[in-house]
Amino acid sequence: MEMEIVEKITNGDRRAAAKLITLVENNFSQAQDILKKIYNYTGNALVIGITGPPGSGKSTVTDKITKILRGQGKTVGIIAIDPTSPFTGGALLGDRIRMQDLSLDKGVFIRSMSTRGHLGGLSQATQATVKILDALGKDVIFIETVGVGQSEVDIVKVADTVVLISMPGMGDDIQIIKAGIMEIGDIFVINKADKEGYERLATEIEMMLDLNQNKRWRPPVLKTIATDNVGIKELLKEINRHIEYLKESGELEQRRRESVKKEMFDLIQEQWKEILSTFIDNGFLNKIVTKIVKREEDPYTAVEKLSNILVHSYTKGGVKSDRKD
Amino acid sequence: MEMEIVEKITNGDRRAAAKLITLVENNFSQAQDILKKIYNYTGNALVIGITGPPGSGKSTVTDKITKILRGQGKTVGIIAIDPTSPFTGGALLGDRIRMQDLSLDKGVFIRSMSTRGHLGGLSQATQATVKILDALGKDVIFIETVGVGQSEVDIVKVADTVVLISMPGMGDDIQIIKAGIMEIGDIFVINKADKEGYERLATEIEMMLDLNQNKRWRPPVLKTIATDNVGIKELLKEINRHIEYLKESGELEQRRRESVKKEMFDLIQEQWKEILSTFIDNGFLNKIVTKIVKREEDPYTAVEKLSNILVHSYTKGGVKSDRKD
Repeated sequence: MEMEIVEKITNGDRRAAAKLITLVENNFSQAQDILKKIYNYTGNALVIGITGPPGSGKSTVTDKITKILRGQGKTVGIIAIDPTSPFTGGALLGDRIRMQDLSLDKGVFIRSMSTRGHLGGLSQATQATVKILDALGKDVIFIETVGVGQSEVDIVKVADTVVLISMPGMGDDIQIIKAGIMEIGDIFVINKADKEGYERLATEIEMMLDLNQNKRWRPPVLKTIATDNVGIKELLKEINRHIEYLKESGELEQRRRESVKKEMFDLIQEQWKEILSTFIDNGFLNKIVTKIVKREEDPYTAVEKLSNILVHSYTKGGVKSDRKD
Repeated sequence: MEMEIVEKITNGDRRAAAKLITLVENNFSQAQDILKKIYNYTGNALVIGITGPPGSGKSTVTDKITKILRGQGKTVGIIAIDPTSPFTGGALLGDRIRMQDLSLDKGVFIRSMSTRGHLGGLSQATQATVKILDALGKDVIFIETVGVGQSEVDIVKVADTVVLISMPGMGDDIQIIKAGIMEIGDIFVINKADKEGYERLATEIEMMLDLNQNKRWRPPVLKTIATDNVGIKELLKEINRHIEYLKESGELEQRRRESVKKEMFDLIQEQWKEILSTFIDNGFLNKIVTKIVKREEDPYTAVEKLSNILVHSYTKGGVKSDRKD
């Protein structure tokens, strides 16, 4: 069964890919056995991160670049990280709106990933999805994420090239937030550039970039009006120029190494979280918590003790990874 | 030395508290020995989370409530989680602006926590800081955080009462983000309520709350213009009403238990991250990464192996927690 899915995906079977992504989201440890076999078929796609504050036009920019790439015969994967509502229970953005436009094209694979229900594992799930779309044969994979919040920034760090989108007139507060992720931008885009405040924002960004002198790559600051297709070709040109730079400078390999390290961190963390969860289920943790709430023990000492117990249970083979080998 | 700091803090020494918070941020495992001793003096303060999108007026609301509380003779701690810029190297918001106003008052302790440099540990650092301010004798502690991004939402979950602030006219995209954190709001505040779009936003929030019927507490939706002090007294009244509800229903204890659980999770995760870091330093991980990048091994199998090695090094006593007991 596993080999069948692997074969299907590497032969471009979209439905098999979609199924595996769903498995990644719902039962990672089960998906992992298939992901191991897929890994050999990855590493060919270019991964581009698109990030920026809410409302800056990330989806529109991504869609417009995708259309140009399709015109050049390239296939595209889009992973949209969506904030979801607990009240509606699903992705509000993403798929549904976009489906109308791009999804009839078999050369484009769009997937929304919910930010809920992954615990800390959204990053892990996104990285696995990149691999699946890579194995599926997509030439370019976009990861679209709202550029606020540490976890969202972390997710986009796995990309080869990060495009940071902003827009004029968002006020000071949002600019400060943007500043927190400026260091990860390889290309800066000011979208909705016909709006008031463009000049000021462009100057601010250029000034911030001037302060950061130890980079061999000086991020360009581009101007787009994505809804009207203005500046999109130029953006794609700059993306290609950045990829060339990455390859020539050896930074592409360096980035991919960093990305592997990050993924290993994520995987180990998730593994330990899972082990921890089994302790919660059996009521053992509840007794400790009662002690802590009553101030009979402090949480730091409790964790030291618990951690020792966890390790012992692990060495006794209580963990999946032992059984699978 | 440790006992001295503990004594100083429990006697209300602000400087000792500030020092310990800095230690928490820079060297958590060293701070932990002191935190253990402080824990016994905690559990008295009310912890209130203030969250909402950028620009919604979180700081102003917090400041205005603080002034009323001070008038009632209560002492206040404010922990402001700040997005920081790598280019300026420090907190942009927070301390400096507010210092002028509240910091001359010895009954108020304000601390900005940078979102940078903590890796995953910001949540852990925030929880430790709450304890320090609690032991320092503060009656009410505010945690102020931007309500976008999973990690930011996680941080505010440790509060007894969560106030969710929004404002009219932020557009659809930001409303969707807000929706992602609606479930954690105990009290909803529409600030800048004199702005256009107030009615629509209020209706939207009420409708969302109507959908969520399994709550014994129906979050009130309040109207403020914080800069003009409009609606602040009413907000404080609702906060008190919520605290009463928490106590009467037994939910306060339940929440604090959840908060302890969350903290234990965070502590264990950070502990394992630290162990992992030692492997990065010695170049061992680099060899694995090279294999993975060359597709000679997949990351999932590599992590399973690495995880086993980590556990063995742990059981041999390579970890602080073993030595400390």
